[in-house]
Amino acid sequence: MRRAGMRDLDPIVLLLSDDVLGSGREDARLPANAAYRAAFEAIDSDTNQLLAVAEIGAEIVGCLQLTFVPGLSRQGMWRGQIESVRISSKVRGQGIGQRMFEWAIKACRTRGCGLVQLTTDKTRPDARRFYETLGFVASHEGMKLSLPMPDESPTSDG
Amino acid sequence: MRRAGMRDLDPIVLLLSDDVLGSGREDARLPANAAYRAAFEAIDSDTNQLLAVAEIGAEIVGCLQLTFVPGLSRQGMWRGQIESVRISSKVRGQGIGQRMFEWAIKACRTRGCGLVQLTTDKTRPDARRFYETLGFVASHEGMKLSLPMPDESPTSDG
Repeated sequence: MRRAGMRDLDPIVLLLSDDVLGSGREDARLPANAAYRAAFEAIDSDTNQLLAVAEIGAEIVGCLQLTFVPGLSRQGMWRGQIESVRISSKVRGQGIGQRMFEWAIKACRTRGCGLVQLTTDKTRPDARRFYETLGFVASHEGMKLSLPMPDESPTSDG
Repeated sequence: MRRAGMRDLDPIVLLLSDDVLGSGREDARLPANAAYRAAFEAIDSDTNQLLAVAEIGAEIVGCLQLTFVPGLSRQGMWRGQIESVRISSKVRGQGIGQRMFEWAIKACRTRGCGLVQLTTDKTRPDARRFYETLGFVASHEGMKLSLPMPDESPTSDG
């Protein structure tokens, strides 16, 4: 696991597209389009964002994004948030996900976070079980509100 | 509703403390302690954070924190995240919450977010129903992992 660079953007976009929920809403054409490049720049220039990739040999097999969120509650506790976790279908079942999360949780500790949080789609019960083995508790409802752009219909998934 | 300034910190800390889940984990002594002041500075200096207060006359009656999160998925979509929502028990049932959320959702649109997200404790079903009236869908599990500090025991709430 390491911090992602712009050279990793194309393989990350392929990982995002190689996904049941992602296949219909990503643009898998390479090189990655301008919207992806702009998003990468926004993430990379923000010290509270950490986009990371899992690499085996020279191949990117997974990615995730950490967001470090300062907050007032609990006497100024920081939270680490994990989003956009993807693992190549080629390497599933080999413990890569576990190692990625151990790395991510350690990164949150290093940043002084008192809590790590994520949301997982209820249509993916295997993902919830995986997070529970890591110690996460499904104590909250994860609620999403789509703000449709002029050219699309509303959806509820996130 | 307006952006919070350092002068609002003490009333915000009182709002955080005036809460069933918050009463045991906040320090309600004023002026707000150094941990709260440091957290306020971290939020205020981050252009992707927006701490806002609801004011009636000269009184702070509510607060919430918006985090704008850049992301690669969905072709570089930004998300708006709402945390630390509190409304004074003195003004509940007057539609203040609805107006705070309408303001927050509009702020997310202004920042170009395609999605607004939040998590709500499953022990607060009335909060879930309120968010559903605003159009939020409980499509996800909100999972939390506490990273206990040396001087405290683990908990699962967030």
